[in-house]
Formats: sequence, C-alpha cells, structure tokens
Amino acid sequence: MQSKSTKSRFLPTLLILLAVVALGWLVGCKTKTANDPVTTKIAAGDTDAVIAARGLTPDDVYAAVKTFVPTGQKDEYVMFASGGHSGQMLAIGMPSMRILKVIGVFTPEPWQGWGFSDETKAVFAEAQVEGQDMRWADTHHPALTETGGEYDGQYVFINDKAHARIAVIDLRDFETKQMVKNPLALSDHGGTMVTPDTDYIIEGGQYAAPLGWHYASLDDYQDAYRGMVTFWKFDREAGRVDPKASFAIELPPYWQDLCDAGKKVSDGWAFCNSFNTEMALGGIEDGNPPFEAGASQRDMDYLHIIDWRKAAQLVADGKAREVEGFRVLPLETAAKEGVLYFLPEPKSPHGVDVSPDGKYLVISGKLDPHVTIFGFEKIQQAIADGKISGTDSYGVPIIDFDAALEQQIELGLGPLHTQFDDKGYAYTSLFLDSAVARWTMGEGDFSEAPWSLVQKIPVHYNVGHIAVAEGDTVSPDGGYLVAMNKWSIDRFLTVGPLHPQNFQLVDITGEGESMKLLYDMAIGLGEPHYAQIIKADKLKAWDVYPEVGWEPIQQKKLEDAPVLGNERVERDGNQVNVYMTTVRSHFTPERVEIKKGDHVTWHITNVETAKDATHGFAMPGYDVNLSLEPGETATFQFDARRGGVYSYYCSEFCSALHLEMTGYLLIED
Amino acid sequence: MQSKSTKSRFLPTLLILLAVVALGWLVGCKTKTANDPVTTKIAAGDTDAVIAARGLTPDDVYAAVKTFVPTGQKDEYVMFASGGHSGQMLAIGMPSMRILKVIGVFTPEPWQGWGFSDETKAVFAEAQVEGQDMRWADTHHPALTETGGEYDGQYVFINDKAHARIAVIDLRDFETKQMVKNPLALSDHGGTMVTPDTDYIIEGGQYAAPLGWHYASLDDYQDAYRGMVTFWKFDREAGRVDPKASFAIELPPYWQDLCDAGKKVSDGWAFCNSFNTEMALGGIEDGNPPFEAGASQRDMDYLHIIDWRKAAQLVADGKAREVEGFRVLPLETAAKEGVLYFLPEPKSPHGVDVSPDGKYLVISGKLDPHVTIFGFEKIQQAIADGKISGTDSYGVPIIDFDAALEQQIELGLGPLHTQFDDKGYAYTSLFLDSAVARWTMGEGDFSEAPWSLVQKIPVHYNVGHIAVAEGDTVSPDGGYLVAMNKWSIDRFLTVGPLHPQNFQLVDITGEGESMKLLYDMAIGLGEPHYAQIIKADKLKAWDVYPEVGWEPIQQKKLEDAPVLGNERVERDGNQVNVYMTTVRSHFTPERVEIKKGDHVTWHITNVETAKDATHGFAMPGYDVNLSLEPGETATFQFDARRGGVYSYYCSEFCSALHLEMTGYLLIED
Repeated sequence: MQSKSTKSRFLPTLLILLAVVALGWLVGCKTKTANDPVTTKIAAGDTDAVIAARGLTPDDVYAAVKTFVPTGQKDEYVMFASGGHSGQMLAIGMPSMRILKVIGVFTPEPWQGWGFSDETKAVFAEAQVEGQDMRWADTHHPALTETGGEYDGQYVFINDKAHARIAVIDLRDFETKQMVKNPLALSDHGGTMVTPDTDYIIEGGQYAAPLGWHYASLDDYQDAYRGMVTFWKFDREAGRVDPKASFAIELPPYWQDLCDAGKKVSDGWAFCNSFNTEMALGGIEDGNPPFEAGASQRDMDYLHIIDWRKAAQLVADGKAREVEGFRVLPLETAAKEGVLYFLPEPKSPHGVDVSPDGKYLVISGKLDPHVTIFGFEKIQQAIADGKISGTDSYGVPIIDFDAALEQQIELGLGPLHTQFDDKGYAYTSLFLDSAVARWTMGEGDFSEAPWSLVQKIPVHYNVGHIAVAEGDTVSPDGGYLVAMNKWSIDRFLTVGPLHPQNFQLVDITGEGESMKLLYDMAIGLGEPHYAQIIKADKLKAWDVYPEVGWEPIQQKKLEDAPVLGNERVERDGNQVNVYMTTVRSHFTPERVEIKKGDHVTWHITNVETAKDATHGFAMPGYDVNLSLEPGETATFQFDARRGGVYSYYCSEFCSALHLEMTGYLLIED
Repeated sequence: MQSKSTKSRFLPTLLILLAVVALGWLVGCKTKTANDPVTTKIAAGDTDAVIAARGLTPDDVYAAVKTFVPTGQKDEYVMFASGGHSGQMLAIGMPSMRILKVIGVFTPEPWQGWGFSDETKAVFAEAQVEGQDMRWADTHHPALTETGGEYDGQYVFINDKAHARIAVIDLRDFETKQMVKNPLALSDHGGTMVTPDTDYIIEGGQYAAPLGWHYASLDDYQDAYRGMVTFWKFDREAGRVDPKASFAIELPPYWQDLCDAGKKVSDGWAFCNSFNTEMALGGIEDGNPPFEAGASQRDMDYLHIIDWRKAAQLVADGKAREVEGFRVLPLETAAKEGVLYFLPEPKSPHGVDVSPDGKYLVISGKLDPHVTIFGFEKIQQAIADGKISGTDSYGVPIIDFDAALEQQIELGLGPLHTQFDDKGYAYTSLFLDSAVARWTMGEGDFSEAPWSLVQKIPVHYNVGHIAVAEGDTVSPDGGYLVAMNKWSIDRFLTVGPLHPQNFQLVDITGEGESMKLLYDMAIGLGEPHYAQIIKADKLKAWDVYPEVGWEPIQQKKLEDAPVLGNERVERDGNQVNVYMTTVRSHFTPERVEIKKGDHVTWHITNVETAKDATHGFAMPGYDVNLSLEPGETATFQFDARRGGVYSYYCSEFCSALHLEMTGYLLIED
C-alpha cells in the first residue's frame, strides 16, 4: 500500500542497517570507544590572545591550569558532599569540581530508578516515619568508612537531619542500600561520623523532645524532654547497619550538635557539642526571647565527652533500657559510670574536630572570635585528678575548663569548623568574616610559631563547613580545601531568587600565607552541608555488575532473574508475571497483553555486559522508570486500572536504534 | 542550677552576640558581600610548574584559559538542558559548564520545595495521568520563547516523552508554573519547538496508539491507531499554555519524531520526521522481527510538511472534531485541504532542522551516511507545480523527492542532528562515528566550497543532539557548540555501573578545520537530551521577589499572606490555620499547639527582602520542605496523625544562628 519512493541512491544504507542490527542482536558486544582516526588536524589555539581577550590575570591563569582536567584524564579526588535538602549525595571530581554523580538517597530519583522499583521502594519503606514514606531529607554529614583511621573507600554514610535517619551507600556501585530511622528522635544533626574502624556510626541529636518524640508539655521540658547520641553498629560484612546491635545514650535536653570520634590516643572516645544548655523554650509570639536569643544567654555550653567503648560494654552488660525497641543507656548510668563528662565550651559551638593525631579537640563557639583547643591528655588527667568543677542539674560531672584548655587563638568572627592538613596547619571557617583562617597546631612541619594565625583568605560568602583532602583521617593529604559557602549573592549569573550555593576550591599546597582561591563551583541543587574528600585511587567501583541477573540491593545474582531464552508471560488468575530481557536494541517480549484488573509483576534483566550499556525502562502511566545497568535485574508491580494501549520504551539513548526499542502493553477492557 | 563555668575571657562575645541578634531582628538588612580587607597577600602561583607537573599540552592550556571563569565574573551564556529521565531541567553556565541550577519540573525536588507545598502540588495535579500524579518524566527538548525568531529570555518549555506533557518555566524566577497533559497521546517525543513568535508550542507524537490511548487490538493497527502533532497555544500575557485554544492534527500511525518550525521564508510551516512507516508491530517473542528491524525495512520514511497557519484557520472554522475534549483536525481534512504533505526522507531520521534563514531543511536518516538538504522554495514550487509522486495509504500527497532535494553530503555514520552558526557552517552529530561534522551551507561567510564537508572532530562517545549558542534562532551566535554524548565510558572516574553522560564543549570560533575540543562536563544526573543556549544578558531574572507576600505560581502578591505583625493561629473546630513569618533568625510563632485529629493549614511568608536570604521550612514527619525565597509566601496542609513533639526548623543555613531558627509543634494526644 506504500507508494513507491524508494531511491536506489540509498542502497548503501542497507549494509549499514545490517551491521547495526547485528550489533544490537549481539549480547555484550563492545561499542567503539577509541578515538577513530577521523580528521584531527586541530591547530592549537592562540592562548595569549584568549587570555588578553578574556581579561584573565596571572592568578586566573594559574587557577585555570591548576583545575582543568583534559579529556581522557581523571580527577585526583572524589568529594562526597551532602546534597542538603535535596536529600541526595553528590560525588564531585577534584580539582575539576565536576559533578560525577548525584546519588539518589532519601529522595526518589528516576534517572537511577531510585524509589521506582520494588527493590528500592522497600528501602524507603524500612525508614518510614509513623508508617509513612518520607520522600525528602535534609542530608548533612557524609562519612566514609575507615580502617585504622584511614578512608577505605568501601561505603559512605549520610544522615537526614529532618527525620533522624542514616543511609548506607555502597561504593562498589554508588547506590544506596539501606536507610534506618532512629526511633528515639524525630530529627538529628550531628551525624554521621565514624569510629576509626567503623565499628559505629555516630548520630548526635539536636532539638530535644521526649525519647520517641511522644507528646509532653513544654512545662515539663526539664523532666520529660531529652537529648541523645546514638551509636549505630555497622556490619561491614553485610554492608548494613544493625539496629539490634546499636545503642544510644540518654542526654540532658540540651540541643546536641556535631560529634567527632577520637582517634589514635583518643580512640574509644567521642565528643559532641551542645547548645541551648539554657533550656530556653522560645515563644516570641508571647513576648519571650526567640530561640536565637534565649539559647545564647550563657557564655558557655557543654562539650560532651563520651567513653563509647565503656558505654558499649555497659549496654552489653544489660545496663540499657529499651525505648521503642532500641537500647538506651540511661543518663544517670552514663554519668555515674564515667561514660559521660561535660567540659565548658564557648557558647553555641558548631563544630568539634579531633586533630589527626587524636591529641587535640578544636571547638569554635560561633559567637566567640577564638578557636578553643582542648588537650585530650589534659582531659584524661583532669578526670584522673578529679579536677571536676561540679555537675550540671542532671548530675553529669563538669571537667574544669582551665585544666583541659590547651590554647585559644583569636581568628575572627563566626568561627565554625576546623580541618587539618599534612603539614600541621589547621583551617577554620569564619561565617561572619566570610573567610577561611589557616593557623598552626602545636607541632608540625611549618616555620611559623605554634598556635598562631597564619593567613585568612576571603571566601564568597557565609562559609559553613570546610573540607580538606582526606581531612578527617589520621593522615590528611592537604593540597586542596573546599569552602562550602552558603550564599553566593553576586558570584554567578542570576537564576532567580533562589541562588546557588558556592563551593570554593582553595589551594593549600604551599606554606605560610600562600593559600589561593582557585575555583567557584555553583551548587544549584540543595544546600550541601558537609563533605569528605577521598583519593580517587582508593575507590574500586564496578563498571558493570559482576554477573547477569544481579540484584543491587542484595548485591547478589538472583537465580530466578529473567535471562536470555526464558522470557515469558505467566498468568495465575488475575496475577500476571512478566519475565523480560533487554539488550541493544529490543525488549523481549515486545508485546504484553493483559486485562483490566490484572495485577502485574514485571521482572526485567539487562543481559548486557558492556560498560555503559545501560537501559532504562519507562512504563508510562504507571509512574515507573527503571535504570538497568549491565547485568542488573529489577522488579515493579502495578494494577491495570483501565483498558488502553501503553508503549513501554528504553529511556536511555543506548544505540542508534534506541527509538525502536519499545513494546506495546495492551490492556483489554 | 547550672554550675559556674562562665569565664570572663568570653565577655567580648556578648557584644558580638548583641550585634548578631540585632542583625537577625532587622528585616531585609544586607549581609556583607564585598571582600573585606582581611589578609590578601597571595603570591601568584607558579603557573609553568603546574603545567609541567600536570602534563598539560598547549592545547590543554588553551582550553583551560578559554573555559575558566574567575570568581566574581560571569558566564557568557546559559544552556537550558533537558534533565532527561531525571524529569528536571538544567541551567548551565557557559563556557565554564557549571550547573547553575537544577530546575524542578516533573519530579518533586525538596530543595526548591517543588511538589511539597499546596501551590506546587496543584501544578502536578493538573497534569495527572488517569487521576494519578506522575512523579517522574523523560524530559527531552527544551524550547526558549522566541520573538521574531530570536530567543527573548522570558520562558522555557520542555516536554515529557513518557507521558506527553509540556511544562512552562518562567525565567523571572526559574520555576515551573504549569504542566499540561496531552489527552490524545500517552507519550510523545518531538516536543517542544516553538513558532517564531511563540504562538504555538509544537509537540510531535511517537508511538502510535488510538487517540486517547484507549484499547484496540494490534490487529486493527492501521485502522484504529494514529499519530498526531499538537500545537499548544501559548498565552504569553498569562504565561500559560491554553489547552482550549490549542489543537492537534491527526496523522497516520507512523511514529512521528522531531519537529521544527519554519522561520522567515518558511514561517507558517512546520516539519516533522517519522519512522516506522512500515507500520511494523514487533513481536520478537513470536519470531517476528523486533521493532529495530521491522521499522527499518523501507529505505524511506516521510517528512511531514505542515501548513500550521492553515490548520489553525481550519480549526477556527470548525473543521476539527473533539477527542477527549481536545480539538483535532482530521487526517482526511488535513490531507485534502493542503495542510499536510509528505516528502520521502532517508529512513529512521532523528532530526529535521530548519536553517536560520528558513530556506533549507536538513534531515539525517540515521542509517544513511549522508545529510539530506531540502529547499523550502523547491518544496513550495513542487506543490504549486503538482510534482506529487502519489499518496500514502491514508491519502496524504507525497511530494516528489527529486523536486525538493537541494543537496546530499556524505558526512559519516549515524548522522542525527544539525545546528548552525553565524558564518554559514552547519554541524551534524554522528552517533556511530562519535564525531561532529562541520560542513558548508549553500551560502555563507566561509572560504570553502558550498555543500562540502569541512572537518570532523571526534567526541566521546555516541553523540546525540548538539547545540550551538543561539543555534535555533534566525541569527545563531556560533562560538561554542556542545556535543551531548550519551556514553562517557572512560572519560571520568568510575562511579559505579551507571556512568555519567558527557557534554563536550567545542570551540567553533574559527573557520575551516579549526574546531577544537575544550571541555568534558560530566552529567551525572539524568540523560540530558537536548539543550538551547541563550546569551546571558537576555535573561532578566529577579534576584528577590518583587513584593513581600509573593505567591510564585500566580506570580502576584497575595493580600492575605502572613506579614510581620499579623502572625497567629486560628482554630475553627478541628480546622487550624497557622499564619507564620520567617526572618533571620526566627519563626513567628515559635510554638504551635494543636490536637491529634486536627487538620492544619500552614501559611508562611519570608518577609526578608535581601538577596539570597532564603529560608527553608522543614516539617519533619509530615514530608514537607519549603523553600521560601525573599518575599515568598507558601502553604501546606496535614492531618495531625498522633500526639507528639515535632521541631520545625529552617533548612537553609541562613545566618550564624540558623540552628536556633526552630520551633515546637506540639500535638496533644
């Protein structure tokens, strides 16, 4: 019935077609990856003319060549940055500051099929709040797994401040495997941080509430409200947090903030800040001081000093009580048994950071222009010598401030967080100054006086956390520092009233006053809160799944996954099971015929083994998109709501004939 | 009851506290944005040493200085790239290739509060499929609004292939305002493209189905299944698509693909490709050829040539019928009235692109090594002269191929899409070659022979679309081309089996064989399909909302928005309304006391007017996060499920005291 318009001049296309089709039918065939010798006569451009035309300064040119990564070469580091209230995590290459992947964590993400398959929906269901899926998060602090205090590149964790949840991401495939909800607290802040061998993931609390966040009047605040710190046990073999082997410590209803784990000499201890030790209750609408003022009345809050090994032993010895099925070491026990001490710290501190050698704790009260350094050995000596200045109203012993103090250094306004490098310099972010300060620790490979300010470099603007390459390990790399600036204001093109944030890469290679701003990275997707930076060569990610039929949540091959040759549609009453395979450039089967009212369970395997040969699977109308990486198998279900013709298709541009990679779901009325 | 640990050395902090609190209480006070004269003694780094140490070639250094944008300076262009199956849109600065914003479109995005407020949930509800929210999309082709064929920077549209939806994004605030669902087709592909004054947004179909996608057997394919092209009327004043003023044209059940609007001499016409004119039905599971083969049997498919002005007139004259409440010009009418012509084109073409002067249509059959150029005037002449070689089985006249052909040029394997520059060069992506070809149009500012291949530059790998600066306008800028490569394979660090895609920036400033690869941008969030690139200075985005109490979906000030001084909690039975304001660093009220079973409607206004002073509003447990940019007001609702203590808080790090920006929601049992 087609009219004749075929032109003989197109006969050569037939040969190409045959070749392409043959390619598609071959499973696992490699695509062309090398640069073919097509025309490559590219003259080098006139670099000097470009520099002049673009008005670049010598500093700019330095920064350009320091950060540029040519095609085919790789970044040196990967920064795992929280995605803030996007709920995700960002994997960023350094020094190029390119986003290599946005990892779906607490928020469904269709490109990855995250939260769209049965397997990934089940991960969400495990971390519900009151029986409801939470489909966003306020991710704060990523923590890479450590072995002997060094990042080992196996897993990365992150917390959800909004709902006190912890997620586990497997760095073999950069995918989330588990979320757990803390049953004690609705929200948190000071997670995640790991102990030096990743025995535990530390999650500090934030806004006090009755444990289990049941109702109690604010009139009963001091009696009924509590803080907490949770030690989540990580089972490295299983790649999972084990809630049954985890525990928490009940704390006074101060608002606990960031924690850090001791290392080397301080291994076995953990340190958490707090604020609102005033136990202010807000109520600006009734003429009370707002929290910002009420929680800032005292000059000192309490650094919480925690012997977690002893706490774990006491819990193992049955000293915990159960709250919502979770083991909690009572505050009274913690105070009495020497698990918990307080140490006055300049008020409203934002960070406590343990130095790489474990000897020093660096605290910044954010309303104090100083950074305050405590000595771990001094703390231990003060405890041993009974240098206790009293107890708080909950009976927790307070270590004498002067006995524990090592140094105070005036840095500037709004100090927040401190990181360390390989030379013995420390770096502290100054929120109100919009600057990063470099200063000297007590000992190190530098020529300046110890405990002295060396340089302040302006950043743009309102810097929160900072991260140094391998900065939370026992042996930081130095070289690069990233200032995570909360406001960008005038740094980027205006893209509406919601401005991007600004990660600024700073060169900290040299000594003395040599810090140098290199690069402004716009962050236009969430408020990345904190980051850790790992050497790229420590990551051993898979580039395809190990076997065809691989189920990534369990990280194993499923024996009943669809494979080539056993594709089928099975019906049992109104229960329909579809077993499908996908390969360039077709699905098998290409037609699925069902009836209105059927419940359909659809199993798909991407039987490819070639790198990057990912297929998507879009089922329009049923809110399903899967990402099937080479070897992967996944499942989804739906109820056929009405009769109709639905085209499923591959949502990845997988081959030249990818538009033809489709099929018809026919639902008979 | 607190023990005494206050130290006189911290007295200076009191003054700082007062200053900070005062800052927080002032509405709209500006934060410090200039570089303060803190220490800035930064010696220029040793550029040559870095070049040597990093092994950069002269070409690399050229690329580095060509793309680096120093802090405080701005990018020249903004690329609006589809977010692929992330469902979003990316705004990317060029030449730095930094993501300035991920714009929430079809997928809920909590950082922006997109899909979490009542106002934005309503946008999702308007584009449901069978009464269900679709919470993902396969975004394909963004289209900027045009005036006289030039991008005007007012709006950008994008389609959802999976569900045949169109979204409208307002470039004053870079936020989505509307989604519409096409009631005729379940899925689409060839949208969105605009007519030169944005009278219409063109949406081509893809996989044929009965209009309305009701059930019909594949046995009835030729009779019951249909294709379509939809012309969505855009009401620029309202900033909305008007479905009642829109219409579609019924098409044969070929699979329509990309469209492009005519311009200048061809204004008033539109051109859409098609494939599967074989009307193959797939069925590999039954031994039939798979679609990839069945839909590639004929050497030619049909370019659809559409007189949309005449079609609009016929619809206005009552010649349309209604399908699912939508006006559809019948195929028979379109064929008979000279609205629709076919022109044979090399099979399975992916793109049809109209040259800036509107004179030429460039088509690439993806299994043909040539690019095929038709002349618009030749087409018109052929119609006038009756050079019709027949009709297809649906009665559509087929224009004689030879009468319309201008040129064919052999470029290489897998040609897909063509863009144009300011000199008269055209650029075509070659998927199978992994290359971009530069070739000469019939006339232009170049020294080469017309209609000749000039250069092929390798790209990495499997390039789909390409985009040139202002490339779809009547006056392209040239200068930069972006190759949107589907596979990256070995270009970036391995981040698991799901690899990023690769946007490669190519320098096309010079003439002849001077194309030069500049930059590899990893795309680790979706498969960006197509992009348009606009001069940055054409964008006039707001940096704060125009007035306090602004509701961004309606883009107007709400008279009943909460403002300073009228914050309150109102109760009517179990209906509770909360009227709240937010300002650095507190909410008013800070306590909301309700009862289990209450239905709560919560209204919030950010009363700030300072640039970048965004507040988030997190309501843990009720799956709510809002982004309240300066001036913005928003609403959300929930049913109080159980008694408890919930801390709401600001999820943006808005000030030094942002952690204190919280309040208690107390739900009494």
